[in-house]
Amino acid sequence: MALIVQKYGGSSVANIECIEFVAKKIAAQQESGHQIVVVVSAMYGETDRLDKLARQISKQPSTRELDVLLATGEQISVSLLTMALQKLGCKAKSFLGHQIPIITDDAYSRARIFEIGDKALLDAVEKNTIAVVAGFQGVDHLGNLTTLGRGGSDTTAVALAARLKALECQIYTDVDGVYTTDPRIVPNARKLNRITFEEMLELASQGAKVLQLRSVEFAGKYNVPLRVLSTFKEGSGTLIATESLKKGEESSKVMEQAIVSGIAFNRQEAKIVLRGVPDEPGMAAKILGPIGDAHIEIDMIVQNMGENGKTDFSFTVHRRDYDLVLDILNSQMPAFSASGTTVEGSCTIAKITLVGVGMRSHAGIASKMFQALGKEGINIQLISTSEIKVSVVLDEKYLELGVRALHDAFKLHEHPIEE
Amino acid sequence: MALIVQKYGGSSVANIECIEFVAKKIAAQQESGHQIVVVVSAMYGETDRLDKLARQISKQPSTRELDVLLATGEQISVSLLTMALQKLGCKAKSFLGHQIPIITDDAYSRARIFEIGDKALLDAVEKNTIAVVAGFQGVDHLGNLTTLGRGGSDTTAVALAARLKALECQIYTDVDGVYTTDPRIVPNARKLNRITFEEMLELASQGAKVLQLRSVEFAGKYNVPLRVLSTFKEGSGTLIATESLKKGEESSKVMEQAIVSGIAFNRQEAKIVLRGVPDEPGMAAKILGPIGDAHIEIDMIVQNMGENGKTDFSFTVHRRDYDLVLDILNSQMPAFSASGTTVEGSCTIAKITLVGVGMRSHAGIASKMFQALGKEGINIQLISTSEIKVSVVLDEKYLELGVRALHDAFKLHEHPIEE
Repeated sequence: MALIVQKYGGSSVANIECIEFVAKKIAAQQESGHQIVVVVSAMYGETDRLDKLARQISKQPSTRELDVLLATGEQISVSLLTMALQKLGCKAKSFLGHQIPIITDDAYSRARIFEIGDKALLDAVEKNTIAVVAGFQGVDHLGNLTTLGRGGSDTTAVALAARLKALECQIYTDVDGVYTTDPRIVPNARKLNRITFEEMLELASQGAKVLQLRSVEFAGKYNVPLRVLSTFKEGSGTLIATESLKKGEESSKVMEQAIVSGIAFNRQEAKIVLRGVPDEPGMAAKILGPIGDAHIEIDMIVQNMGENGKTDFSFTVHRRDYDLVLDILNSQMPAFSASGTTVEGSCTIAKITLVGVGMRSHAGIASKMFQALGKEGINIQLISTSEIKVSVVLDEKYLELGVRALHDAFKLHEHPIEE
Repeated sequence: MALIVQKYGGSSVANIECIEFVAKKIAAQQESGHQIVVVVSAMYGETDRLDKLARQISKQPSTRELDVLLATGEQISVSLLTMALQKLGCKAKSFLGHQIPIITDDAYSRARIFEIGDKALLDAVEKNTIAVVAGFQGVDHLGNLTTLGRGGSDTTAVALAARLKALECQIYTDVDGVYTTDPRIVPNARKLNRITFEEMLELASQGAKVLQLRSVEFAGKYNVPLRVLSTFKEGSGTLIATESLKKGEESSKVMEQAIVSGIAFNRQEAKIVLRGVPDEPGMAAKILGPIGDAHIEIDMIVQNMGENGKTDFSFTVHRRDYDLVLDILNSQMPAFSASGTTVEGSCTIAKITLVGVGMRSHAGIASKMFQALGKEGINIQLISTSEIKVSVVLDEKYLELGVRALHDAFKLHEHPIEE
């Protein structure tokens, strides 16, 4: 008998019909011999409805009170799902964040989990009672309600799976798994059967919106096998786990074959280029310090070898921060302009990222990527690489073309041998 | 500086506009120098909406889960009202049942309060922070959410006022006070400035729906002055307090003048008459025992002196229980029919009750009542009296006529002298 943590998102509990469907699914899995802890999000649209109420009162409502408000969304779903399970004859009991308890810090609206009690939940599952847990919410050590930020129910599920040493954490959603890239752009994009935590992190952070980033980090850190599946469509979804687990399973050659796992892309970024920056120690910090101080997140940073004591320095930020970043840099300009530095940038760029742990042991991936893009006449503006990814920045208009070219070039529509 | 507990019902926080109006009202009262603890109900219609969701799943949902579900209604209102107060520049903080805590027994859906913590709330008010408390909800000693039953927010407010030794507990609602009788039946019904707890209990239990009965009992027991006022209309409402407080205030002759305070009525009852019941000890218990066992509430019980070893025995129950009571009595009939007992009853009756603590020291109230009804040709079917009330049962069709006749006969539209 294995303990499994399952998480159902808002679209899986959007109305009473969905809730009853999900209840039947859970009951069948319990029937098949599993101990089940279920984590539930708010009914689809409910969090937005509540948020809108708050915004009618204030554009910047107190985050403490906003958390009190938003936490009701999950409280409603857990009680309804528990009733639906009980109606099927299952033993079931709802649990709120403060009843488990899920102790967090006091950073309202984006709290981090400190500690989770296991007694109440283990008591329940040992009695064959399905524990139905409100996702997204916790309490700080003073008993104030907190929330984990949007998508926080995934984090709740993974954290519980880690704490309860569950066999697997299953994230039920409206997609049936993680794809090689967005099927809206590449119609023959392929569902991946397995992927590593690191690959998933790169794919998610690059824009594949299936799972909340933090929950993947958490799963990787505590080595909780994570599976993404569809609530309403049968199938085994995509398993996100460590490489060794992937290798240890039925196919031992998976990793050798699948060099590139997927292609992520992002059209939310803007590029900033500083030309003629004095090539001196501490210069990068001097440029980026004030931007970090303004709590602006920086994504790619690219600096090339200097020439004649000067260098070019480029980075990307979210488009919404573009104007602010230019303001900050221009207010710093007196310090730079004496040395002839100029600032330019663009909001019409896109980023494409090839992801794959197989890159570690395979040379030539980057050059094959640049070739494929070049063949389509796409100019690459910035390049940044890490062990398991290559990112390029290009003109936004080439995004779809570029993604399709790469998907073809790396034959991602084909199943890697023996997977 | 006095501490005041205020309670705002669902229609007072029905939408964001109402919530902002209420916030201004509270802020003005704080401005005038009061420490304020506010208790809030769910937004108008929300509890019904949630209840309907649960009933879509099950006709008899688990009461534990129903409480988890319904408690969200008040959680939403407290967070929104707190935000509205903060927007006005007030310090304010929301409190849920488990955060205070309000400890109850574990009788879900109709829990009784055991104990209330005062530390968190007093901490707040001492810092001039308005404490905004979720009504209706508590936790049992294991941390399960409980609710106090419909109208339980009144009970929360009174219990907090008692615990915090508040000067007054103000119940804001959509009526501007307690009237001598229902103004829809008697257009010149008069708003009472003062009334005792006992009178209010009789008026409320007899059908005047202004306040939840239990909250009045509670207020009486702990001697918390209770004031009913309108949220949206200015005025001092009706003060519900002990006789001594009434006497101790500006007018010392109030009670001597107002013999009858009000007229309650009820058209939800049915009458059962057993004729020819053997006049023996234990007979009443034999009749009513099985009815009590079926959790049916009995209101009036009337038995006259017997004759020839036989007597008539009458009582009233809620109309919804009428058929069930007849079934129960008929199933007991073998025990009675041998002695010639017969059962009859009627669902088309109404009850009118005169209420007034002044009756204690005034004879002749009942006979004046019967005279007034007789003059209109109204036949009285049953009579029951207590120290501060006289109730009569009559044919339902005479209800309005009877209430008006009595309101006139006792001149209830006139202010008692010196009130």
